[in-house]
Amino acid sequence: MGSDQSNNLEFLKEIGLGSTNIGGFINGQWKANGSSVTSVNPSTNQTIATVTEATVIDYEEGLQACSEAAKTWMTIPAPKRGEIVRQIGDALRAKLDPLGRLVALEMGKILAEGIGEVQEIIDMCDYAVGLSRQLNGSIIPSERPDHMMFEVWNPLGIVGVITAFNFPCAVLGWNACIALVCGNCVVWKGAPTTPLITIAITKLISEVLERNKLPGAIFTSFCGGADIGQAISKDRRIPLVSFTGSSKVGAEVQKTVNERFGKCLLELSGNNAIIVMDDADIKLAVRSIFFAAVGTAGQRCTTCRRLFLHESIYANVLDQLAGLYKQVKIGNPLEKGTLVGPLHTRSSVENYKKGIAAIKSQGGKILTGGSVLESDGNFVQPTIVEISADAAVVKEELFAPVLYVMKFQNLEEAIALNNSVPQGLSSSIFTQRPDTIFKWIGPRGSDCGIVNVNIPTNGAEIGGAFGGEKATGGGREAGSDSWKQYMRRSTCTINYGSELPLAQGINFG
Amino acid sequence: MGSDQSNNLEFLKEIGLGSTNIGGFINGQWKANGSSVTSVNPSTNQTIATVTEATVIDYEEGLQACSEAAKTWMTIPAPKRGEIVRQIGDALRAKLDPLGRLVALEMGKILAEGIGEVQEIIDMCDYAVGLSRQLNGSIIPSERPDHMMFEVWNPLGIVGVITAFNFPCAVLGWNACIALVCGNCVVWKGAPTTPLITIAITKLISEVLERNKLPGAIFTSFCGGADIGQAISKDRRIPLVSFTGSSKVGAEVQKTVNERFGKCLLELSGNNAIIVMDDADIKLAVRSIFFAAVGTAGQRCTTCRRLFLHESIYANVLDQLAGLYKQVKIGNPLEKGTLVGPLHTRSSVENYKKGIAAIKSQGGKILTGGSVLESDGNFVQPTIVEISADAAVVKEELFAPVLYVMKFQNLEEAIALNNSVPQGLSSSIFTQRPDTIFKWIGPRGSDCGIVNVNIPTNGAEIGGAFGGEKATGGGREAGSDSWKQYMRRSTCTINYGSELPLAQGINFG
Amino acid sequence: MGSDQSNNLEFLKEIGLGSTNIGGFINGQWKANGSSVTSVNPSTNQTIATVTEATVIDYEEGLQACSEAAKTWMTIPAPKRGEIVRQIGDALRAKLDPLGRLVALEMGKILAEGIGEVQEIIDMCDYAVGLSRQLNGSIIPSERPDHMMFEVWNPLGIVGVITAFNFPCAVLGWNACIALVCGNCVVWKGAPTTPLITIAITKLISEVLERNKLPGAIFTSFCGGADIGQAISKDRRIPLVSFTGSSKVGAEVQKTVNERFGKCLLELSGNNAIIVMDDADIKLAVRSIFFAAVGTAGQRCTTCRRLFLHESIYANVLDQLAGLYKQVKIGNPLEKGTLVGPLHTRSSVENYKKGIAAIKSQGGKILTGGSVLESDGNFVQPTIVEISADAAVVKEELFAPVLYVMKFQNLEEAIALNNSVPQGLSSSIFTQRPDTIFKWIGPRGSDCGIVNVNIPTNGAEIGGAFGGEKATGGGREAGSDSWKQYMRRSTCTINYGSELPLAQGINFG
Amino acid sequence: MGSDQSNNLEFLKEIGLGSTNIGGFINGQWKANGSSVTSVNPSTNQTIATVTEATVIDYEEGLQACSEAAKTWMTIPAPKRGEIVRQIGDALRAKLDPLGRLVALEMGKILAEGIGEVQEIIDMCDYAVGLSRQLNGSIIPSERPDHMMFEVWNPLGIVGVITAFNFPCAVLGWNACIALVCGNCVVWKGAPTTPLITIAITKLISEVLERNKLPGAIFTSFCGGADIGQAISKDRRIPLVSFTGSSKVGAEVQKTVNERFGKCLLELSGNNAIIVMDDADIKLAVRSIFFAAVGTAGQRCTTCRRLFLHESIYANVLDQLAGLYKQVKIGNPLEKGTLVGPLHTRSSVENYKKGIAAIKSQGGKILTGGSVLESDGNFVQPTIVEISADAAVVKEELFAPVLYVMKFQNLEEAIALNNSVPQGLSSSIFTQRPDTIFKWIGPRGSDCGIVNVNIPTNGAEIGGAFGGEKATGGGREAGSDSWKQYMRRSTCTINYGSELPLAQGINFG
Repeated sequence: MGSDQSNNLEFLKEIGLGSTNIGGFINGQWKANGSSVTSVNPSTNQTIATVTEATVIDYEEGLQACSEAAKTWMTIPAPKRGEIVRQIGDALRAKLDPLGRLVALEMGKILAEGIGEVQEIIDMCDYAVGLSRQLNGSIIPSERPDHMMFEVWNPLGIVGVITAFNFPCAVLGWNACIALVCGNCVVWKGAPTTPLITIAITKLISEVLERNKLPGAIFTSFCGGADIGQAISKDRRIPLVSFTGSSKVGAEVQKTVNERFGKCLLELSGNNAIIVMDDADIKLAVRSIFFAAVGTAGQRCTTCRRLFLHESIYANVLDQLAGLYKQVKIGNPLEKGTLVGPLHTRSSVENYKKGIAAIKSQGGKILTGGSVLESDGNFVQPTIVEISADAAVVKEELFAPVLYVMKFQNLEEAIALNNSVPQGLSSSIFTQRPDTIFKWIGPRGSDCGIVNVNIPTNGAEIGGAFGGEKATGGGREAGSDSWKQYMRRSTCTINYGSELPLAQGINFG
Repeated sequence: MGSDQSNNLEFLKEIGLGSTNIGGFINGQWKANGSSVTSVNPSTNQTIATVTEATVIDYEEGLQACSEAAKTWMTIPAPKRGEIVRQIGDALRAKLDPLGRLVALEMGKILAEGIGEVQEIIDMCDYAVGLSRQLNGSIIPSERPDHMMFEVWNPLGIVGVITAFNFPCAVLGWNACIALVCGNCVVWKGAPTTPLITIAITKLISEVLERNKLPGAIFTSFCGGADIGQAISKDRRIPLVSFTGSSKVGAEVQKTVNERFGKCLLELSGNNAIIVMDDADIKLAVRSIFFAAVGTAGQRCTTCRRLFLHESIYANVLDQLAGLYKQVKIGNPLEKGTLVGPLHTRSSVENYKKGIAAIKSQGGKILTGGSVLESDGNFVQPTIVEISADAAVVKEELFAPVLYVMKFQNLEEAIALNNSVPQGLSSSIFTQRPDTIFKWIGPRGSDCGIVNVNIPTNGAEIGGAFGGEKATGGGREAGSDSWKQYMRRSTCTINYGSELPLAQGINFG
Repeated sequence: MGSDQSNNLEFLKEIGLGSTNIGGFINGQWKANGSSVTSVNPSTNQTIATVTEATVIDYEEGLQACSEAAKTWMTIPAPKRGEIVRQIGDALRAKLDPLGRLVALEMGKILAEGIGEVQEIIDMCDYAVGLSRQLNGSIIPSERPDHMMFEVWNPLGIVGVITAFNFPCAVLGWNACIALVCGNCVVWKGAPTTPLITIAITKLISEVLERNKLPGAIFTSFCGGADIGQAISKDRRIPLVSFTGSSKVGAEVQKTVNERFGKCLLELSGNNAIIVMDDADIKLAVRSIFFAAVGTAGQRCTTCRRLFLHESIYANVLDQLAGLYKQVKIGNPLEKGTLVGPLHTRSSVENYKKGIAAIKSQGGKILTGGSVLESDGNFVQPTIVEISADAAVVKEELFAPVLYVMKFQNLEEAIALNNSVPQGLSSSIFTQRPDTIFKWIGPRGSDCGIVNVNIPTNGAEIGGAFGGEKATGGGREAGSDSWKQYMRRSTCTINYGSELPLAQGINFG
Repeated sequence: MGSDQSNNLEFLKEIGLGSTNIGGFINGQWKANGSSVTSVNPSTNQTIATVTEATVIDYEEGLQACSEAAKTWMTIPAPKRGEIVRQIGDALRAKLDPLGRLVALEMGKILAEGIGEVQEIIDMCDYAVGLSRQLNGSIIPSERPDHMMFEVWNPLGIVGVITAFNFPCAVLGWNACIALVCGNCVVWKGAPTTPLITIAITKLISEVLERNKLPGAIFTSFCGGADIGQAISKDRRIPLVSFTGSSKVGAEVQKTVNERFGKCLLELSGNNAIIVMDDADIKLAVRSIFFAAVGTAGQRCTTCRRLFLHESIYANVLDQLAGLYKQVKIGNPLEKGTLVGPLHTRSSVENYKKGIAAIKSQGGKILTGGSVLESDGNFVQPTIVEISADAAVVKEELFAPVLYVMKFQNLEEAIALNNSVPQGLSSSIFTQRPDTIFKWIGPRGSDCGIVNVNIPTNGAEIGGAFGGEKATGGGREAGSDSWKQYMRRSTCTINYGSELPLAQGINFG
């Protein structure tokens, strides 16, 4: 399969992939009439396999079937929908290793993280099964005799999910597990550069639907580019579009969806900081910064990109970090011991280079790293940069393992620095003082959606709500009450008496 | 006061109004440098009083003070903020009659509704006091040992509230009561044509703040026009803008606010239907339709504008309705017995005339009403129109007492008709069958935010969430978990151990 | 295995049972030093297998290990505990058929119900897995600056579960699934007459614990009699005892547990009524009454024992019921087509006979049934009795398929009759009128814990809370917030500032 | 009024009290046929006024009226009931000072605490008003098509409240505010030694009921002794009895109520500890211990009775405490500057004396205090005792200002000491380490219902749930979901279709 020599690709067969693959699952059939694209191994830039993408005409066919399927799916009792999601979880569990391997191969993250990503969908399935008996509405006391007030949650119908390359399947999992138990069909467009993952996950879900004699169109999926994304954004049949990607593209998607009064669930750019206080457990902090800054080669939305060190521990922490950066094993993500894989594409490497140049021109001092590695793959050096908080680059998300380090003198200053960028996804503080912890998570603390203490900025659990404020888009996925976004709320007042009392005691006629 | 001869305006003094008034409450001071406008009595088109509007420069001064006040207000414990809102409620209660009278005078709704509107703010205050001890976050079990996961709710800082003439103060109440207990300052722009209400309510709130030695800038308010609205929409210091108005303007506000990654809470156009089934309690239905269609002279966002009658009871219901329409007393809203007051402005009357013309040109048959009344005021006849559901006018919100009547044969058809317009605010069915009730409130029932049974489309209680889907904008105000929109959610993971286990069991380094 | 000739018992091996079995799982070992008892097939009164029961000394050994294991189990993160429960669910799923068969064989219920009972534990496991990430505490706003208020839920330690023969494993499932994810060890005493089920379920759970290298003592189980039950009730190491059985024994258990300030979760006697209104769907009502009254041979706690028929449909419903009663197939519960199996024991048959005699002596008229069937097994005729609501027998729970029928004239009378017994478990009404439905479930309606409409009194779903009021004991199991009973709640106020403000504004010193 | 010369008792008239008073409010009338008792000022042991107590015959008359009133009250919409409670809150607010003064006079606590106690009822009223729109049931997804599952909360009918002398009105407030908005009538028996408070509070509530033309029997109250308490406990018309008092009497009440399958809400003895870690803010700790141990003369259920000091700060803390104890002003609670008032009765003084003797005989060393003061009143010295944790007296609640001090070496030991008594009400730790805080509030931390950090054991806010575990009785009052105890939960499944699918997929016939 493919021309890639560096890996044994036999495992792809286990998850239904071949050397050529069809990139559209439409009305329960594999079908795609678009151009043929290649899936490329970022470690070698060799082809893994080819995929035929879907066209906008394919999309329309898919959506018609999906709309029809929605009428069925939404009337199936939620716990029965939960049972389907449970079976999807079991199917994933049975293929955890090859799926995790595929994520590592096609996206470029290390195997442990590839498997972790698939595990996250499994966790989501397990969670959603329980949720399927808890999508509770409310019975609210009415001020009028012989009246009852209900808050009822009904399915939306169809949820569109547009995901990014860096979490090529977990984000689908966050959305699809919840959307499905909530009674919605799912329309998925995976990232253009990770089509094999899109296909593998879709196959597995489609098999569960088939085994249960349910319409395949309940889960409709497309490999494709911006035209499919645009079609989803404009489609009035899709009340909710969940989009993961940059703030720039997200803003466009939001505008398009809002123009038709649709809703968005946005997971956009992050620019996440770690603050290390003078009283911090330095060992814990250093390990965390290292994982947060170089893990996934800096390509998580929760990657730590800004580091604020109290002046008293500044040199110490930087020394220890530099030591780790120098020893870190960069290479094939499927090899044991590798901690840093390649950037995802050649254009990511170009971006890194442009970023480094901008850093230098804006007065940044490169403490370690800063170069592209000589290889066929997209490998770059994890980089630490000393720079002013005012530099323009510091306000932007550079999607690569580049860490900006800055010094501060007290908590207020550190929080102000943390909050001084447009993005508001994740943030973390290292401290041992309760008052610092509670200020950090309080009204005048971090303005992010994720506010950690003594752990990295990345590595969220599914039980909480994941997402961020400001230019990160405000969406919340996975746990807590995120499910409410996937449903339509109605406030129902039922008069079962024969009188007509009015609210606020109004007398009319 | 003013030149209006038709009413005794002495009561305006009780609530702090004079013949000239300053339309800006800025940094705790009454101040406004804009043009002088008149508040007009819609029953007579005579001037009640004059008001100096605020300018954009006034706005900027107000916002700077407000931003400063926000730092104080957000750190006051929520139950203490609740105590302030309780005092506001008591202050309103003490002035219920003159305030209700002012609403009737300046907006044009009948006195019972004017008092009901003020009562609604009082109810909101009482409700918000309790809420101030229940703005609960969550403690979520972490999958990692020695970790705790919190979901914390913090204040946003400042909430902008832009309200419309038809509920010139209740909508402020929905927003401000919740926003304040949640720890936010409020910036209010009232409707340009109801400045006296804006000033009267602001005075009363400002006095409570003063009595408690709190910065007046916690509540900042402006009489003014689109320039002030625009300034609010664009202002990065205002994370949430709550806007009530037409879908058209709302879409613009949303676009502007989203461009800066702010959030909107939209209460836009409705186009609300009542369905009467063959088994309905006809007496209850007729009374409800009448109140829903002619109440507030058809100027509620929840006014019933479309009526779907089962063919078997079509003639009967129309006969009874026509009878009521012919007898209804139209006139001075402050006079006893009046059920229909004037439209709010002369341009509303023009709009009504254009609507009637369009109806006729699109094949609508006017069953009763259809004319403007001869008078100095803005009085029009409540109107019933027989028309096809396909007519373009039926898809739009005509803000006047015009009711479109259509016939149907079965529940599915009636629900499809109900759902066939762009708006999705309120809807109601009259039936005595449980299966019809539960289908109506279920996944394939009404697609509106408010889904009633055996009561009118209007007259919501504050305990539920108020708002609508689709072109109505998706916002939810007042009860249920609406308060969450006024707060910033953060998911906090706290590691209190000395190890660094990762989520999803990932092993890194 | 055993001497029973009527069934192929080979399947018992699949679930780890032999002809002799050890009835104690203590500190991860199978061990029991009590007397040997036989498990008897109620269809034949032949022995299935023998079981050695545990002694009070065995109990003490088990509890010491369990107390030790509790320290470990409670500190394992809840989602990890959920993963164990998920594996238990999968293990049950793999043995659904033989386990269901065993329930039918040993308890005597028909196979469909036997399998349904095991399915219910599986459903509980799936539900509990989701719950393991949602055992949420609260963060409550404090009235004091620099204070936070938490409501935290911690494990109790050990939960004692004493179950009855009629649901020999489902009730364990309700309790154990929730207790385990909540962080508690479980001590189970199954019914003395269903030891094989106790052992089979315990084996399966113990294997999951072993596979995960967890202490076996997390799940400690005993076959035994009243001495073990008493030991549990008195044991100060067991903060919560969940007991299912008669009101009489339950009251004793409660007294014993309360004396040591322990807590009880009681599921006691029911005396459940169905009301059929004049407007009811008679076909639906008759099918429901039939299932509710004769299903499980009248040995469910939710069995319908009292039937209130509106006078206008009295004769019609009774006729249809009598027809069904005459045709119902009574016999071996493992045979296809059987709807009524045997009573569980010979003493149940004696009880039935005594009941029939008392009915007759109290003026009851037997409309159908009333006799014991000639056979080696414990078969009796399902019975319908016309009797006055005032008869003493009507106030008691006769654990057999005997249905008391009474006539009424209006809803108020029917509700009064429903509420006129000491028990308060389940109740059901058949009607098509919304006002009747809402009155029935409202403040002056049924006083039971389960209040159904147009379904039988039995057959609860796990998503709701199961249990009843008054002499039924007030416990609630399975869904909703039942989990809170398995945890210890603490209200924590944390001062992270350096001042000491007091609540209610008190000034001290 | 009365013969007390030490205070100006004119203020009693303001709250409706005279020199003789009737101690029963029965069916809306003041009426009592029992013996005449005197209310005594504990500072002087002089009579304040006399009160005629109610008899058991009066009780029966009251309960009959109350049962009748319950039928009305439970059908009034909850928000309307909330409005009544709001008016009660306003009535209390208007009399805050004289009521607080009466509490100080009759109970003996200092004026600031007397006013604080009344303020707590006012807070409860405000809270309950909001709650009256939030007594929400749930709509739970059913696994069966065309079925809906509801969890509905209905009123219990009547709630019995038996309160103790130390919080003669706040505990009534906790219970009555919630019970009333939940739709229950209240039957109150105040403490026999604080009849004037019982009467004053009842008067004020009765006036609100009267003003609203509601039956006075909604609130029924008795001054009386054990016979009235017993009557309440045995009364089948009272589904819930809320009892505050000693563990010993509480156990009796529980037994009596349970025998008739009623429910109890118990607030019994506490034996509350403060732990001071080596890293604590000593100043904060000392102030807190002082308030917790000597406040209310040691007569709060949350009074700190046990003090565990880390060995490294043992001497320092004791020194500072001893200093405060020596200077504390003991005397007339109505006088400015007094921090310690009298014990409530002469028998409390006897009890204190016996306690001191037992302490000495069990090896306790009195570090400061230990004597009764010479005076006409019931004044004793606040006392600090060094004693072994094993001494029998340390396991008991001595209701007087006696503090046992013990030394420890590490957190585990301190927690074990905290948990080593039968009672489980309140507990507190002083520390600055997050790991200590989270262990303390975690599964292996304090086993109490109230688990504080850096604040005293006493002084709870109403937003949380108040109450304790083990011999403290397990009840929870005031905030959180305490309201659920005052309601009857029903799980309702409504079939609105025409089929009869069964749960767990069972097929029957």
